[in-house]
Amino acid sequence: MAFRTTSPEALQRRVAVIEKMGLGKGWSDGDLGHGRAYQFYSPDGHNMELYWETKWYDAPEHLKPSWRNQPQRYTGRGACVKRLDHVNVLAADVRASREFVQELLGYRLYERIELDDGTETGAWMSLTIAAHELIYVADAYSARGRLHHLAFWVDTREECLRAADLFVDADVPIEAAPSKHGVAQGFFLYGIEPGGNRVEVTTGGYFVYDPDREPVTWSAAERARGQFWGVKTVDSFHTYGTPDVANEKEAMTT
Amino acid sequence: MAFRTTSPEALQRRVAVIEKMGLGKGWSDGDLGHGRAYQFYSPDGHNMELYWETKWYDAPEHLKPSWRNQPQRYTGRGACVKRLDHVNVLAADVRASREFVQELLGYRLYERIELDDGTETGAWMSLTIAAHELIYVADAYSARGRLHHLAFWVDTREECLRAADLFVDADVPIEAAPSKHGVAQGFFLYGIEPGGNRVEVTTGGYFVYDPDREPVTWSAAERARGQFWGVKTVDSFHTYGTPDVANEKEAMTT
Amino acid sequence: MAFRTTSPEALQRRVAVIEKMGLGKGWSDGDLGHGRAYQFYSPDGHNMELYWETKWYDAPEHLKPSWRNQPQRYTGRGACVKRLDHVNVLAADVRASREFVQELLGYRLYERIELDDGTETGAWMSLTIAAHELIYVADAYSARGRLHHLAFWVDTREECLRAADLFVDADVPIEAAPSKHGVAQGFFLYGIEPGGNRVEVTTGGYFVYDPDREPVTWSAAERARGQFWGVKTVDSFHTYGTPDVANEKEAMTT
Amino acid sequence: MAFRTTSPEALQRRVAVIEKMGLGKGWSDGDLGHGRAYQFYSPDGHNMELYWETKWYDAPEHLKPSWRNQPQRYTGRGACVKRLDHVNVLAADVRASREFVQELLGYRLYERIELDDGTETGAWMSLTIAAHELIYVADAYSARGRLHHLAFWVDTREECLRAADLFVDADVPIEAAPSKHGVAQGFFLYGIEPGGNRVEVTTGGYFVYDPDREPVTWSAAERARGQFWGVKTVDSFHTYGTPDVANEKEAMTT
Repeated sequence: MAFRTTSPEALQRRVAVIEKMGLGKGWSDGDLGHGRAYQFYSPDGHNMELYWETKWYDAPEHLKPSWRNQPQRYTGRGACVKRLDHVNVLAADVRASREFVQELLGYRLYERIELDDGTETGAWMSLTIAAHELIYVADAYSARGRLHHLAFWVDTREECLRAADLFVDADVPIEAAPSKHGVAQGFFLYGIEPGGNRVEVTTGGYFVYDPDREPVTWSAAERARGQFWGVKTVDSFHTYGTPDVANEKEAMTT
Repeated sequence: MAFRTTSPEALQRRVAVIEKMGLGKGWSDGDLGHGRAYQFYSPDGHNMELYWETKWYDAPEHLKPSWRNQPQRYTGRGACVKRLDHVNVLAADVRASREFVQELLGYRLYERIELDDGTETGAWMSLTIAAHELIYVADAYSARGRLHHLAFWVDTREECLRAADLFVDADVPIEAAPSKHGVAQGFFLYGIEPGGNRVEVTTGGYFVYDPDREPVTWSAAERARGQFWGVKTVDSFHTYGTPDVANEKEAMTT
Repeated sequence: MAFRTTSPEALQRRVAVIEKMGLGKGWSDGDLGHGRAYQFYSPDGHNMELYWETKWYDAPEHLKPSWRNQPQRYTGRGACVKRLDHVNVLAADVRASREFVQELLGYRLYERIELDDGTETGAWMSLTIAAHELIYVADAYSARGRLHHLAFWVDTREECLRAADLFVDADVPIEAAPSKHGVAQGFFLYGIEPGGNRVEVTTGGYFVYDPDREPVTWSAAERARGQFWGVKTVDSFHTYGTPDVANEKEAMTT
Repeated sequence: MAFRTTSPEALQRRVAVIEKMGLGKGWSDGDLGHGRAYQFYSPDGHNMELYWETKWYDAPEHLKPSWRNQPQRYTGRGACVKRLDHVNVLAADVRASREFVQELLGYRLYERIELDDGTETGAWMSLTIAAHELIYVADAYSARGRLHHLAFWVDTREECLRAADLFVDADVPIEAAPSKHGVAQGFFLYGIEPGGNRVEVTTGGYFVYDPDREPVTWSAAERARGQFWGVKTVDSFHTYGTPDVANEKEAMTT
């Protein structure tokens, strides 16, 4: 994951902190869309990097938008997602991972799951008013550095339903049909892209305008209720991640 | 179920046929909303009646609509369903029931389920271009005369989702959260009303404009695929009906 | 316009009537999608034909749908309209044209406009429960045989809004932005296709289940209220048609 | 307008700045929903106040939500708006007002209108990723301290359309029927509440995640294009505000 800092100075300050922590890997020359970046490991072993220099998208002539406050002409092709919305990563130790990004990157914690024995198994965090931008969920295999899913934003629930129709006819395996989450209340559709990663098409949720909002903590008993409208979460959702350490992919996509 | 005929003459003609079949019960003086009706039994034992004289709804002053082509002011209260859309009844013998309403009432058959042994277990029928107005489904207990569900129409899928939110907070048990059917392709939400009957909030589906459309027949193997987006149908959906001959209600509503 | 009859016998009966009226042109060998057709003129001079033999669409391999009760795989491309919904034609004499299709083809009249002097200037008709399938509107230039618009169906209002975004960025001139009609209550978007014809993307409206529904008649005073939410209809909507007898196209599309 | 600060210390810092500017009015004992507040005038004469102490809404028993991450049970009554989204105020001098809230309160400027002579006539600002939370628009009468409108958020465009149906039948005058803005791209419905204030039901728009985004500046020529789908803005939208200094209300609401 690559994060853009709020300024060049903020980048230097973060790099100094990471180096003191001993988690730094060093500078890269940059990548598609951004300039040099400082790379490091999270405590769980996820690859992360910070950068300031960015390259703005300049639409080619045939994709120039009609209104200048849009980045690109509206094409309406396929699922037609608008932007990356959030990333959900698995972690062997959710609490440690969550505290790391709170302290290092300034994430705020909006919702979390805590088992009766005090183990933290989920954390929904954000740098903005959006209900979640980064999520940590416990890895069922205690593996390190795995991905749960990438979520792409659409503006309406109708577009999630439309994406589901497209998935069905395009042979994209649907892991979880469109419905509404209880935690964070986002509307979702989960599928498995050809490379094996879980992807979400999402919209909705809520905004947090309060500077001092207390996180909502859910118990295991409450989680047993299922999703917002009572849909039971499929088992694979609690275990599958990429890389696929338990050879679950075949069962999911065939 | 009460059906309005297309004319007073059509009523007389149908009554003559029913009496010849020996299924007639006789004339009632009418009921809320309609005049005298001829009552009879279907082969499966469902109470049915036919009538012509009807009473048009005349909105009281505070509910007069702003546009004269609406029956009533739009209030937007609760699930705010627009009209009755279809009725799904359970039958011990689906094929016999289906043939009865086709022959007596002129229903057209648009989709059906036939097991490998030739047993018909579902029939979706209509008198219009709408994909279904009357459905027969096999009764898991071979009971007679039971109801599967009543379906109420809303114009948009967003209103189905809205109804689900209302159900959750109003303690209406949700049997099946909003999703899309494979058969007939309607969008659905199923709940159990306080009296114990299953009710659906529905929209979508398709229209049949062809005068000579062949019914689509589904096999048991195809039905195992689940709903349109792969959602597995909950077990109770295949067994529960009213009256509740197997005492399933308690498990569904608590 | 080509209409499919309900049976081969119905076709023969209609042809006999038309020939008696002296409006017939004779048989064609058929056209894309259908077999031989009997061609005739409406009283206003529109070309019409009736046929029975039809060719069902057989999707090529890459467009085969995942569910057999769909005609084709869902592609989600462009405005992605589902089917032709209705046709609106201009007529020098609306009343005569309306009575002609009612008597010859069995159309039912659901809504109409009548000026204070008794002139009929609009008629919304249907062969089914749908609120309109054929509309006659008075030609502002008393020209004969012109088209007002073709309307294509989408299942949701969201798809009308999506089509509007596509029109804006694809340089399809929008004559009337998405809104809701007062008459018939359909949701609309009107644009001008490259050939100069007005096209509509539509959804919504209402269904007529009553066999004896009285048509709703609107006065000129009521029509002055504008569309359902008060939007004033643009002037060109009352005058422009194709062929463009008054050279209005240039003003509309540049 | 009352603004909550991000901390008690931030409140003290802002008060010190305002007092130095000579715009302060002094402390109030608080109001419904919040504790003591420091009151002051904006350069244009709008009443403003800052506070930290807040009272959280505690839903009464019959309005307790089913999910603890919601503030209240979903009732679905009326337009059912979710929260205040933004405020649009008229100002005799937009540029001075905009610079004041940017410097004092930290607002970021996302879009603006500048006439050919350099006059700034509109400014869309936000404290978050939301495309606008505070808007200044030039007062057509050069009056001071007036309100253009309050905007209430709904999650979907369908709910804006639903609100329009409710407005029509509840005799709430619709000033602008549902459509999409070009500037900031929000979906809107404008009406006049019984007290005479313009209110908006809104959703959509875009998010700004870039820390260094350049504001989009629109010219008068570009504004002449109308709204996103070409709808011309009604004249009253450019002149009417409250208090109604030009006696426009009667024309708008009858």
